Amino acid sequence: MERILGIDPGSRVTGYGIIDTDQGQLQYVACGVVKTNPQFPFAHRLNEIFEGINEVVQVHSPVIAAVEDVFMASNPRSALKLGHARGAAVVAAMQNGLAVYDYSPRAVKQAVAGYGQAEKSQVQHMIKVLLGLSGVPSSDAADALAVAICHANQFHI
Amino acid sequence: MERILGIDPGSRVTGYGIIDTDQGQLQYVACGVVKTNPQFPFAHRLNEIFEGINEVVQVHSPVIAAVEDVFMASNPRSALKLGHARGAAVVAAMQNGLAVYDYSPRAVKQAVAGYGQAEKSQVQHMIKVLLGLSGVPSSDAADALAVAICHANQFHI
Repeated sequence: MERILGIDPGSRVTGYGIIDTDQGQLQYVACGVVKTNPQFPFAHRLNEIFEGINEVVQVHSPVIAAVEDVFMASNPRSALKLGHARGAAVVAAMQNGLAVYDYSPRAVKQAVAGYGQAEKSQVQHMIKVLLGLSGVPSSDAADALAVAICHANQFHI
Repeated sequence: MERILGIDPGSRVTGYGIIDTDQGQLQYVACGVVKTNPQFPFAHRLNEIFEGINEVVQVHSPVIAAVEDVFMASNPRSALKLGHARGAAVVAAMQNGLAVYDYSPRAVKQAVAGYGQAEKSQVQHMIKVLLGLSGVPSSDAADALAVAICHANQFHI
């Protein structure tokens, strides 16, 4: 059994999702978001991301972090901000001794919806189905669970 | 008296430089670089930056971090990597309770060489002169000291 933390980084909202995998069986553990306060200086918000992910790791004790890559086609300023946020999240995982893996948005969508250009709502729906959830998680939390599932598929664990 | 840590972030080499300022008097304390191993996965290298800056802060106890911004005109992939590195450095400063300030490369060059497009060698030379050093620091360390001086000038401290 392995516990995987999926992270969908963002400077405003960072989604996280945790699953257990055991020989191809996926089990939902938790999901949610780390929101940062846009009123605060950017350095403060990066620290909120670090501390939010740190807390999630300490509560749920995953051993692997799967982190979605930044989609480069977005505008360069946004990509740069996202790079900062992603760096903060990755360091939080590393500081807790997790093994960190990167997945492209396309690979993540492919893994859960069978199509690299799937819409957000398709991803949300498929997460509900694949993990047998009673409701649909928020888009950011669903994306994070999708990254975790992408890792599980990749390694057939 | 205030002790300022200047940081010139980079995914390969992150420069740092520490100065004390007292009513406009600048005093050199330390400078150097945090090098990351290009053989290692990127997440590991971000962690090296976090830990390197963490160590510098713990040894020298600065209260302010002045961090150079990413120059957006560079190629987008490099800017994105640099964003990650900068995020890791900023979070290390924040985790140690430092106040973090951002300065553009132009403002930094203007502060030490009086010209926003100054060459690297001019910055190195001016750092030697302004801080009364016996030798010229490496380019990354000189840039980091320049960011610290930029902050001191900005706040007339």
